[in-house]
Amino acid sequence: MQIQTLQDLLQHELKDLYSAENQIIKSLPKMIKEASNDKLKQGLESHLEETREQATRLEEIAEQMGFKPSGHTCKAMKGLIEEASEMLKEDAPDEVKDAGIISQAQRIEHYEIAGYGTARTLAEQCGLSDVAKLLQKTLDEEKSADQKLTKVAESRVNQKAAEVH
Amino acid sequence: MQIQTLQDLLQHELKDLYSAENQIIKSLPKMIKEASNDKLKQGLESHLEETREQATRLEEIAEQMGFKPSGHTCKAMKGLIEEASEMLKEDAPDEVKDAGIISQAQRIEHYEIAGYGTARTLAEQCGLSDVAKLLQKTLDEEKSADQKLTKVAESRVNQKAAEVH
Repeated sequence: MQIQTLQDLLQHELKDLYSAENQIIKSLPKMIKEASNDKLKQGLESHLEETREQATRLEEIAEQMGFKPSGHTCKAMKGLIEEASEMLKEDAPDEVKDAGIISQAQRIEHYEIAGYGTARTLAEQCGLSDVAKLLQKTLDEEKSADQKLTKVAESRVNQKAAEVH
Repeated sequence: MQIQTLQDLLQHELKDLYSAENQIIKSLPKMIKEASNDKLKQGLESHLEETREQATRLEEIAEQMGFKPSGHTCKAMKGLIEEASEMLKEDAPDEVKDAGIISQAQRIEHYEIAGYGTARTLAEQCGLSDVAKLLQKTLDEEKSADQKLTKVAESRVNQKAAEVH
């Protein structure tokens, strides 16, 4: 795709995010399986549901804007998920591994926070206020997911890991 | 490296960030060269200086903690920079390209915000308060760099791009 206008750039961003969401949907079940802490497991499970809705939301936006969201691979998310997979292979004590999973999940969340923030601003600047609102909704969810992970990291998980250390 | 303790995980995070910073140091000059907007160019230039200092700060932390920061490749940053390089190759009008550069730069910033946030919390939980303070300093700089990019995106760059659209 050749990017010539701001709306082309927005379309490119949305395809990138759609690929990212679909990669996350494939990867999250593995993270959930390896997580030990109940709050972390539950948090990731509910975020998986949320991620599926976010992917559907992107399909709706693409339909409104008249393009297909598939066909692009988000290379950054590929790298992020490769890193996360390596962490999942570590044979570490549960609490240390949980801290590692949170670390990777927050890197993934922050990719999305940056991506949706940009896409929302671009949609506003293209005068697509309905699209901007939908993107803002996802952005709020991603920020909230990140904050929940911070809370788990700062509470039980890492306290236990500190005892291991 | 086998991760067994929280301090092992911290060391892993710091090596990952050291690789990330060094990849950014190589990549930023290309982004600066392709950027057109003066504020964006200047912002990226001053962030390049800051990034060099952040890499040195990681070397100091590694020395304090007794490990070599080199020898690891941050795969996520590799993917992020591949994406940024593709954006730089786009033959788009200046203002659209600038918006694309900002988008990629903010994804890179957010990777670092997540990484330094995790590393700072881990350092606190390992009782390494001096290390935590140094990491907090970089975290603050990364957040500030991200906010500056948002301001440029919301102001002139994208306004011009909207006119192109």
